Amino acid sequence: MNILDIIAKKRDKKELTKEEIEYFIENYTKGNIADYQASSLIMAIFLNGMTKQETTYLTLAMANSGEVLDLSSLGKIIVDKHSTGGVGDKVSIALLPVVASLGVPVAKMSGRGLGFTGGTVDKLESIPGYKTQIDINNFVKNVENIGISMISQTLDLAPADKKLYALRDATSSVESIPLIASSIMSKKIASGADKIVLDVTCGSGAFMKNIEDARKLANAMIDIGNLANKETKCIISNMDEPLGKAVGNNLEVIEAIEFLSGKYMPQDLKEVVLELGSEMMLLAKVGDNKEKNKEKMLENIYNGKALQKFIDLVENQGGDISYIKDVSKFPKAKYIEPIYAQKNGYITEINAEDIGKVACNLGAGRVRKEDNIESEVGIILEVKIGYKVEKDSILAYIHANDISKLQDAKNKILDIIKIGDSIAKGRNTILDII
Amino acid sequence: MNILDIIAKKRDKKELTKEEIEYFIENYTKGNIADYQASSLIMAIFLNGMTKQETTYLTLAMANSGEVLDLSSLGKIIVDKHSTGGVGDKVSIALLPVVASLGVPVAKMSGRGLGFTGGTVDKLESIPGYKTQIDINNFVKNVENIGISMISQTLDLAPADKKLYALRDATSSVESIPLIASSIMSKKIASGADKIVLDVTCGSGAFMKNIEDARKLANAMIDIGNLANKETKCIISNMDEPLGKAVGNNLEVIEAIEFLSGKYMPQDLKEVVLELGSEMMLLAKVGDNKEKNKEKMLENIYNGKALQKFIDLVENQGGDISYIKDVSKFPKAKYIEPIYAQKNGYITEINAEDIGKVACNLGAGRVRKEDNIESEVGIILEVKIGYKVEKDSILAYIHANDISKLQDAKNKILDIIKIGDSIAKGRNTILDII
Repeated sequence: MNILDIIAKKRDKKELTKEEIEYFIENYTKGNIADYQASSLIMAIFLNGMTKQETTYLTLAMANSGEVLDLSSLGKIIVDKHSTGGVGDKVSIALLPVVASLGVPVAKMSGRGLGFTGGTVDKLESIPGYKTQIDINNFVKNVENIGISMISQTLDLAPADKKLYALRDATSSVESIPLIASSIMSKKIASGADKIVLDVTCGSGAFMKNIEDARKLANAMIDIGNLANKETKCIISNMDEPLGKAVGNNLEVIEAIEFLSGKYMPQDLKEVVLELGSEMMLLAKVGDNKEKNKEKMLENIYNGKALQKFIDLVENQGGDISYIKDVSKFPKAKYIEPIYAQKNGYITEINAEDIGKVACNLGAGRVRKEDNIESEVGIILEVKIGYKVEKDSILAYIHANDISKLQDAKNKILDIIKIGDSIAKGRNTILDII
Repeated sequence: MNILDIIAKKRDKKELTKEEIEYFIENYTKGNIADYQASSLIMAIFLNGMTKQETTYLTLAMANSGEVLDLSSLGKIIVDKHSTGGVGDKVSIALLPVVASLGVPVAKMSGRGLGFTGGTVDKLESIPGYKTQIDINNFVKNVENIGISMISQTLDLAPADKKLYALRDATSSVESIPLIASSIMSKKIASGADKIVLDVTCGSGAFMKNIEDARKLANAMIDIGNLANKETKCIISNMDEPLGKAVGNNLEVIEAIEFLSGKYMPQDLKEVVLELGSEMMLLAKVGDNKEKNKEKMLENIYNGKALQKFIDLVENQGGDISYIKDVSKFPKAKYIEPIYAQKNGYITEINAEDIGKVACNLGAGRVRKEDNIESEVGIILEVKIGYKVEKDSILAYIHANDISKLQDAKNKILDIIKIGDSIAKGRNTILDII
């Protein structure tokens, strides 16, 4: 077996065998196959596609390329949750304590943000003292003791995926359904998931810009799940506008805390949380009726159990729980300025990617991996698509630490939040369940 | 401009601009673009193709990536001849002295062989003393003085092509018509050609296995020639069986000398030489009628002028002309053994590639670039496709220096030269003229 024959086979639109895919991944990870050979094969895969079976072999080969977390000692069904990324996406923080409070074990490893989408780990780290890097034994122990732990990816999980992703990024080969699907699923499988619930975001602020592509990606991941014996459920959620009101790290944590306490629940965030959570409960076998599951979730929000679970989590990870109990303690940006509507009308568009970029420029995100982020900067949207506004009513607040960045953000936000003369109906939040 | 956008554009089947192609070639040659990015683009080109215009831009960018030979001081139309390679292909040696003797200036830089096809430089070097590496001033001076010089490629011509070719070879991206066409044409343009005559070989011993692909390649090169203002003519010649009788370095030189002296002219070699030569004369404007050009060529063979031109060439390059005057002086292999027909019948097949591989194994070719070759080993075929043979008549002679290689070659040749019961008509030698 050699890489030249494997490249030629895929180049000629033929199906690769399990052995060929394993040979590629094993030898690429070891450095026996050069980057220029891997990128050539990746472009051939990008253009000629892969079958379900090939995609599954690729996923499993990448999952097995490094450590694979074994959570069987917990003696429970481990359901992992993953989002394909969005703007204002604080779902993990708002959702996981709720299901944990209902008995679904949560052993969650998250990533950092890059570009216009944020990362759960960055958000959690805006809670003073919260340690996202703890060793794997303590991680498992935390799940055992309080039913939940949320950390950053500390293990060397799916190193082949890491190497291939960096290569794809440097060779314009990212946007391929089988490659995206296998990348996501390999990390989930390596992190010990028995079953997987996926939030496939769709719209201007997501990887998948249209519903057809989102469905393709969802189906590709479900196919992998079936073939890999990891039951997988996908919801496709709208990411045409940011989720909820807050975009920015501690701003989003505060919104999640308000959500968990039942104080304020933006409608779109609520729908996504309930949909994903009720599916997780089904898969974890802690509730066999979706509607009842949603009721139980709301019950635990209103009776304080969900917030308490979050407080337990923060405490267990070394975080200062006084911030959770009193969100006004979170540091604030130097400048907090409102943006006013320039005319009467209806909100017709709030492009999520554009909002994400403004937040990133304010300091909430990273342009390069090594950039630092500023926890307290970002945007609070006071309107959503379809809202009626009057001239001089407040559209949003900008939280900035730098006066010139503030000015730049103001101009951009005025451009991004579009006001039209007639009412615009945004899309549903939940676009599909597959 | 950046390489990621260029890769994405070709990946999405869009046409690259002159500036984008020049940016790629310039920065890849300089090392600013990584091999893994180039190989990704190359695979996208392989799978999505290139237009005539893109292929021409690529050709010119590669031609201009290093030194470009200026032969204008000769004050003549420089017609270069190139073959896409074959087995037993001694055409340059048998042809160029003939046209030089008729006033067509010959400034020919050739390559070495690799794999089962031989190289003109290796063949010329089997003449004791013949220097294929002379400096460019002497090369031009020789053409000025005696109308012909044949050397190896000493200048750093088209370094981008060299780098890209090596990359294609290591990434299963060789067999792409626009990439092959631009590779060939870039070297011809860099070596100072005003006009180009191409021998596109076709069949089992050639890159192009069928006439459709050969025509595509020919047309791609003619399109480049037209757009680059380098008039180009292609003949497509049969390479299903080796050309002429001899395969091996000094064996082929001897056959070419016999050809030039008019002593023995294999029909297929004669057709190729006359066809290419008469086209070269047309393009060089030393004869405006193809049939008359062929007559003149034969005349100069029979009156000794062609051989004398070859003797002048060899003398000028430091070679021992006594070998040309008496070919029996050439060193002989240790073992020269006949192969006998095992039955009566007709020759139905002599796979050129297989013959080339046997010759290569005997020591006539290189498996790797750094291998040495043995001048005197090879195969002399005594039959061609369509010949009638009787049991125990001689099919071929093997010239070997090693007894085990001889035995191996004998067994293989018996397999390769196929004898059937009914007459097989081989293809014409000249399959098309474009």
